[in-house]
Amino acid sequence: MYSVDRTICAISSPAGTGAIAIVRLSGEKAIELSSNILQFPEKFLKSKSGQLVFNRILDENNEMLDEIMIVKFKSPHSYTGENMTEIYCHGSNFIQNEIVNLLLRQGVCIAKPGEFTKRAFLNSKMDLSQSEAVADIISSNSSEFHRLAINQMKGKVSSEINLLRDKMIELTALMELELDFGEEDVEFADRNNILELMLQLKNRVKVLIDSFRYGNAIKTGVPVVIAGEPNTGKSTLLNVLLKEERAIVSSSPGTTRDTIEEELIIDGIKFRLIDTAGIRKAKNKIENEGVKRSFDSIKKAQLILLVIDAKISDIHVVRDMELFQTKLTDNQYLIPVFNKIDLLKPDKKINIPESLNPIFISAKNNENIDELCNRMTDYVKSLQSGSNDVIITSARHLESLMSTNDALKRAEVALKDGLSGDFVSQDIREAMYFLGEITGQISNEEVLGAIFEKFCNGK
Amino acid sequence: MYSVDRTICAISSPAGTGAIAIVRLSGEKAIELSSNILQFPEKFLKSKSGQLVFNRILDENNEMLDEIMIVKFKSPHSYTGENMTEIYCHGSNFIQNEIVNLLLRQGVCIAKPGEFTKRAFLNSKMDLSQSEAVADIISSNSSEFHRLAINQMKGKVSSEINLLRDKMIELTALMELELDFGEEDVEFADRNNILELMLQLKNRVKVLIDSFRYGNAIKTGVPVVIAGEPNTGKSTLLNVLLKEERAIVSSSPGTTRDTIEEELIIDGIKFRLIDTAGIRKAKNKIENEGVKRSFDSIKKAQLILLVIDAKISDIHVVRDMELFQTKLTDNQYLIPVFNKIDLLKPDKKINIPESLNPIFISAKNNENIDELCNRMTDYVKSLQSGSNDVIITSARHLESLMSTNDALKRAEVALKDGLSGDFVSQDIREAMYFLGEITGQISNEEVLGAIFEKFCNGK
Repeated sequence: MYSVDRTICAISSPAGTGAIAIVRLSGEKAIELSSNILQFPEKFLKSKSGQLVFNRILDENNEMLDEIMIVKFKSPHSYTGENMTEIYCHGSNFIQNEIVNLLLRQGVCIAKPGEFTKRAFLNSKMDLSQSEAVADIISSNSSEFHRLAINQMKGKVSSEINLLRDKMIELTALMELELDFGEEDVEFADRNNILELMLQLKNRVKVLIDSFRYGNAIKTGVPVVIAGEPNTGKSTLLNVLLKEERAIVSSSPGTTRDTIEEELIIDGIKFRLIDTAGIRKAKNKIENEGVKRSFDSIKKAQLILLVIDAKISDIHVVRDMELFQTKLTDNQYLIPVFNKIDLLKPDKKINIPESLNPIFISAKNNENIDELCNRMTDYVKSLQSGSNDVIITSARHLESLMSTNDALKRAEVALKDGLSGDFVSQDIREAMYFLGEITGQISNEEVLGAIFEKFCNGK
Repeated sequence: MYSVDRTICAISSPAGTGAIAIVRLSGEKAIELSSNILQFPEKFLKSKSGQLVFNRILDENNEMLDEIMIVKFKSPHSYTGENMTEIYCHGSNFIQNEIVNLLLRQGVCIAKPGEFTKRAFLNSKMDLSQSEAVADIISSNSSEFHRLAINQMKGKVSSEINLLRDKMIELTALMELELDFGEEDVEFADRNNILELMLQLKNRVKVLIDSFRYGNAIKTGVPVVIAGEPNTGKSTLLNVLLKEERAIVSSSPGTTRDTIEEELIIDGIKFRLIDTAGIRKAKNKIENEGVKRSFDSIKKAQLILLVIDAKISDIHVVRDMELFQTKLTDNQYLIPVFNKIDLLKPDKKINIPESLNPIFISAKNNENIDELCNRMTDYVKSLQSGSNDVIITSARHLESLMSTNDALKRAEVALKDGLSGDFVSQDIREAMYFLGEITGQISNEEVLGAIFEKFCNGK
């Protein structure tokens, strides 16, 4: 249960040993309690808000634990809006833990993950969508997700939501006007006007909902599969992609057993290469599952790099590929990658319909790999709809927007069916309620708990 | 090669992701260059030294990279003595690296490990022994090593060294006095006086040299072996020690193949349990190497816990143990641990000579383990000689002290042999030279390089 009386503390720098670590406190008594572990408490208490001052921390035996820099931020001019202290100490684990232990003995409590930001939200330093962006900023490892998170923290999502809410308030005001002056002529004129406004609103909500397709791809990374017949050079392509200079690569255990996912960041966009273990394994033994196996992987992918040996490409390949494309869902995109162009005789012509949008590469010679990377990032960019700035990346926000959309649909039907303004207003108020969930005007302890428990410690 | 013109930067918080990270810069242009990546450079430039202010970092495209707190420290009132900037940013790896990249584009260089502290030393903010203590403080994970490092940083080692140097200056002054008024009567009276002073000096140097035995044990941890015949309960004892509530435990790869060292911190003192892999393995198969194997391990240990089955202890055990003890070096200490006292019949008497200093435990029932721990820490504490505060923990300091000692010995011989004051003075000046290496009055780029390259990044 949240209590403002609790003074909280946490190690806010990354876990581990380093040159400097940060311990911070928040709460009404944060400044007073932190002064109790200092050799020169008066110096700290008299210092100005935001002024870093030298001090020493004394342990229980009055022995010096560390020489530190310390700063206080007086309420409301702090991150949480409460009184805060930040301690900059030498970054040994021993010192970090001892400082926290000394503070605990002063009655300070260990902060829960995200508790500083939660307090900032509860003290109206930022709204809920901005608070969530803080966690995204810290966890983002690609520049594009970072950009979206920064925009969200700056309040671009919130502004759009608040604008939509304002328009809804306008709508309900119009509905109430209708109730007050309920004459038939006026009603119809107003209702057309109101319907027009409502459709505009629904449209903006839809743009936000649609933006999640891009936002989610950016946030979680685009799942990519390298598919194709045996001996088309899939593993060579995998290796060349992972070695690509423009790419930052990391491996992480996949979601299913025996699967390794490799992460690839191209031009700031994250791709998750799935089922790469299969490709790697296949290198050293005869691959006998061929396209069948590929089809299994393909179900999990959003982007499919179908590798074809350019030497043996013929009419069958084209037919197979057209068949292949019919099996994809709307959310999937195929790039036919004709590999081994280095082995082609100069006079060999490849007849591939332009409609298939093929790309010709030599994985072995690193030829045209840049272009393949561009095709991959172009695809992701094509998922964008509407504003470049207001992108929904949170499944929670999407859910609220879907509910908003449903409520607006009900309002629209009620309006078209000529139902009483009361009913229409009720639906619009519901829509506003769901929007309020996004920015946190509407929230409860359970929702907040679920949001902030995903934060890292000390934030 | 060190150049003050270089403005350096580094991530000074521990590596990895966290709530807040720290990037810092040092150099004449540190403040100016860091202002170039800010949205509000004027606000930062106008801020007071030591005052944390809000700002935003802009990337190359003038997009906001992060909202930060930033502070400047004007020369000479900074850690390095130079102009410094510290940036507190959101702790994602992406942001940390991007900030460093933006600074590099401003012409800032990546700081070498320890370069901030090296500059602090070169700018006389601290002496060399204090600089070395900074690295020890950051790496220490036991309270006692932490205490010694803090004392060294506070200058306790330096004060003692400086005091010794002052006394040597006094000595050389006396020698020069002798040269000026070189009459026989005066000479002999003075020489006795000088010899007395010199012996006092040598004694103090010896105390420092002797303190290294304790200092090194505390710094590197005391190597402990659990030895004994099969089935005496060695592995049970190992487990109970590692589970001991007062102990903080960690495993690390040992120095030799197939060896696991486990670290155990009891009452702030670090012990390294060596050859524990052998004990663990032995649990599930018949141990047939017995005491022979133990003897091999024992060579590597400083503290030997020789486990004996209390049930079968008899006159042979006592004789074996006495033999055992004769094989130990001066630097080794044996604790005879009579285990399984829970299985003893109440009337069974154990006749062990007091001189062997036995301890009776039941590892299985966790009986008397506390006392065993006390015996272990008491042994380490007994290694202390002289002052509790001035303890040498650095092999480099020891080496210089040994050389100081040798030079003083030569001076003593010269004095006793009635050699000319010139010769005696020369030896004393050499002794001063070696002392100067400790505090850094005497240093060269090679020595400094070797010292600071062991620092962590950002310090």
